[in-house]
Amino acid sequence: MSQAAVHGGTVYLSGQVPTDLSADIRGQTAQVLEKIELLLAAARSGKSNLISATVWLSDMSMFAAMNEVWEAWIDPGNAPARACVEAKLANPGYLVEIAVIAGTLSSRSKSSPRP
Amino acid sequence: MSQAAVHGGTVYLSGQVPTDLSADIRGQTAQVLEKIELLLAAARSGKSNLISATVWLSDMSMFAAMNEVWEAWIDPGNAPARACVEAKLANPGYLVEIAVIAGTLSSRSKSSPRP
Amino acid sequence: MSQAAVHGGTVYLSGQVPTDLSADIRGQTAQVLEKIELLLAAARSGKSNLISATVWLSDMSMFAAMNEVWEAWIDPGNAPARACVEAKLANPGYLVEIAVIAGTLSSRSKSSPRP
Repeated sequence: MSQAAVHGGTVYLSGQVPTDLSADIRGQTAQVLEKIELLLAAARSGKSNLISATVWLSDMSMFAAMNEVWEAWIDPGNAPARACVEAKLANPGYLVEIAVIAGTLSSRSKSSPRP
Repeated sequence: MSQAAVHGGTVYLSGQVPTDLSADIRGQTAQVLEKIELLLAAARSGKSNLISATVWLSDMSMFAAMNEVWEAWIDPGNAPARACVEAKLANPGYLVEIAVIAGTLSSRSKSSPRP
Repeated sequence: MSQAAVHGGTVYLSGQVPTDLSADIRGQTAQVLEKIELLLAAARSGKSNLISATVWLSDMSMFAAMNEVWEAWIDPGNAPARACVEAKLANPGYLVEIAVIAGTLSSRSKSSPRP
């Protein structure tokens, strides 16, 4: 298992999980997004290049709190497509796991059509 | 959060959910597929260009009914790769959520190898 | 529904499930990975070209056993990005389902940056 794989101008990250499990959903989401940012940077990408995100919450009642941290973090003009569902995660202390796909900086730039 | 993001000839849609939650699984699936069709059209794509679909059902017992509507909707020569699992969704009234990836019309055409 | 769809140098497989449901998690994982290998070969790809994998387990307590079979199977220098969550699957006898994305052999080769 690799934390990131790049193919044809696109980087795929493994599902990222929090490190400090004593944090609440806001704190755990912030930790996960920080990890994503570091991994994207290492792959010559960044949050403005996000294309797709899958968010798993251990309990859907935490959706609003997760989303608040997400919205504050995301590049507003370059929000990715996202899906969010509830799932039991690998460690009972994980409240959130996020997997993303992003464009690499050398690839063609993303556009976000909004119908 | 964006309903669609395009990168390198590929369009990624956010997980689409039904609007009229009084509908049964057949109705909700039809609503979701109609939304997908509109979003794909706006991104210069379409259901014949579908590559991948992830279907989440709030209860797996609705699989056959969802699949019936799916099969009637899909372009038979261009069915995408699909995965379907059960998950609790963002709203307890959602019976189904579908996220898809598709090629844009200007990109190289898709082929579906069948071993 | 297609078992594989190819677009722009990338192949997407449908969620693969085991065939012999009497097998335990190790056996079912091996069956799934063998199916993936055959489907990738038919799409002119292979496990060394894996980019991304989503693993669903019917019970997260089987993670270590699934992962053991996974680790023995994977090409160590070319491990894909992976996410693994628990989900109820289409058949109560399925213990594991895996969906993957891979590069095709004719496309640009994958690189796995490790920060």
